[in-house]
Amino acid sequence: MGMDNVTVKPHEKLALALEAELAAVNTLIRDRMASKHAPRIPEVTAHLVEAGGKRLRPMLTLAAAKACGYTGPYHIHLAATVEFIHTATLLHDDVVDESAQRRGRPTANLLWDNKSSVLVGDYLFARSFQLMTECNSMRVMHILSGASATIAEGEVLQLTAAQDLSTSEDIYLQVVRGKTAALFSAATEVGGVIADADPTVVQALFDYGDALGVSFQIVDDLLDFEGTGQTGKNIGDDFRERKLTLPMIKAIAKADATERAFWVKTIEKGKQDDGDLDHAINILRKHNALADTRLVALDWADKAKAALLALPESEIRQMLSDIADYVVARLR
Amino acid sequence: MGMDNVTVKPHEKLALALEAELAAVNTLIRDRMASKHAPRIPEVTAHLVEAGGKRLRPMLTLAAAKACGYTGPYHIHLAATVEFIHTATLLHDDVVDESAQRRGRPTANLLWDNKSSVLVGDYLFARSFQLMTECNSMRVMHILSGASATIAEGEVLQLTAAQDLSTSEDIYLQVVRGKTAALFSAATEVGGVIADADPTVVQALFDYGDALGVSFQIVDDLLDFEGTGQTGKNIGDDFRERKLTLPMIKAIAKADATERAFWVKTIEKGKQDDGDLDHAINILRKHNALADTRLVALDWADKAKAALLALPESEIRQMLSDIADYVVARLR
Repeated sequence: MGMDNVTVKPHEKLALALEAELAAVNTLIRDRMASKHAPRIPEVTAHLVEAGGKRLRPMLTLAAAKACGYTGPYHIHLAATVEFIHTATLLHDDVVDESAQRRGRPTANLLWDNKSSVLVGDYLFARSFQLMTECNSMRVMHILSGASATIAEGEVLQLTAAQDLSTSEDIYLQVVRGKTAALFSAATEVGGVIADADPTVVQALFDYGDALGVSFQIVDDLLDFEGTGQTGKNIGDDFRERKLTLPMIKAIAKADATERAFWVKTIEKGKQDDGDLDHAINILRKHNALADTRLVALDWADKAKAALLALPESEIRQMLSDIADYVVARLR
Repeated sequence: MGMDNVTVKPHEKLALALEAELAAVNTLIRDRMASKHAPRIPEVTAHLVEAGGKRLRPMLTLAAAKACGYTGPYHIHLAATVEFIHTATLLHDDVVDESAQRRGRPTANLLWDNKSSVLVGDYLFARSFQLMTECNSMRVMHILSGASATIAEGEVLQLTAAQDLSTSEDIYLQVVRGKTAALFSAATEVGGVIADADPTVVQALFDYGDALGVSFQIVDDLLDFEGTGQTGKNIGDDFRERKLTLPMIKAIAKADATERAFWVKTIEKGKQDDGDLDHAINILRKHNALADTRLVALDWADKAKAALLALPESEIRQMLSDIADYVVARLR
């Protein structure tokens, strides 16, 4: 295979096109996560921020602003804001999920303690608000503070829906819209707002981010059952944590009496024995729950791409569209 | 004793003077802590918000605005914002401290779980930012987002300073300024800012809040050793949690070899036996550490009152001054 056969992934292409801006974002992030008084803070955040995240969310903000012809400096602040909010939620998620690994590395709550994860997460939230105020746009503030509230609301809803076999696809979608899509859509929307784009374009950017985020999370939930384990995530985490994701919800809707008893035992009562995860996956396969979920993810990716048509044609627009394809291509 | 001998406490007097505004704040709080999607949120927050807190911080904002002749509507939003930030930090503190009681009632993390406390705290933080954006004042946003970062920084610093016998009075003051005084000073400062008061008056309000907050926390730390237990706080919590507060720092500075070994055993190594708390209190008494700490608290209360002299004379100013006296009067 020659060089021309090496596939450059869409998010890597976008990263190249936004190279200078991303470097500025990284510098700003490093600068603002510092703390004169509490060295524990940069220790914890460096661990996460340097851990090889793809910077997908900040890239969306940069790309959205660029696609709308923005030439000012504030998309850098907004991209850093979005990454700070994301990192803060990761820190708190790890406490809530009692996770031991994230992106293939031990989590902060394991390396330090839950206390540090909670408080450093709070610090990053506060810093994100400081950063966004620097853009002097009330509209941006409304969007991002609203998104933060929606994220927390989605996480709480997920908490109360866990272990509840009556969780519907609607509730699932609400959780996903909150915990994942709200930040994606805010990331793209503020890119358009800062560029003073037309209302239809701003709406299209919101719709793109929303659909992309939903698709992204559904794929994530699928990979929890059929991933290779190379993503640093363990197969079956959601099953073990009794989190009802779309594949399980679809299978439970079609369960016969024996299967229902199995779900009650493993999810509702949390009694999980050796072999139960394999058995769960077999039930999912039997009811086509994984294949059906894949179709839903593809559908959301299509919605994301369709929304982009309201934007003027450009290389960046094409890259955003390719990202929507790539998000579901993670499923091979 | 006739009615005229019944003492109305200064914060109760202030609450009466601000009755209408406080009612509006309470309505706004109840309105904004609701969540259409996640009923767990108002459950958790109601438990805290209704738990009979004195609303001291929001009263400070209302009083500061009033003392500066403010007649607009936004002091209500700001007061609610300040209470939301306070409530969010309480929820997260209880997780960090693994507390079982707050204000004499079981904590949210005990009634629900740590997860709910973390996520509902995040929700309240986000809602506080939404609320403050409604005031359309960039300066207010800078002050309150800055205060939120300082609070988290102070909490992280406290975490890393715990169990460290070399903690100095300077570090202690830095922790207290962060975890407690930052919100007091922001609460009073934004009251002046929203009223468009003179820079000297705004500075004086900041100084008052800062000194009041420091005094308040020092008294709290003293009550942890000499309180009656009627505040819902257990005597010796800080000692048990190995948190070095001013009385301990003062006693450790004067420790002889035997006492030093005692502090190493109980605080650094965390080996605490029956009778150790009583022994610790005896050492504190021996070195006048409690009496000396009381003098420091009184000194900060005096600073708070002195700052108020930059404000025009008014009934409200007198009440704020009385509150500074009352904060230390809690020590009897």
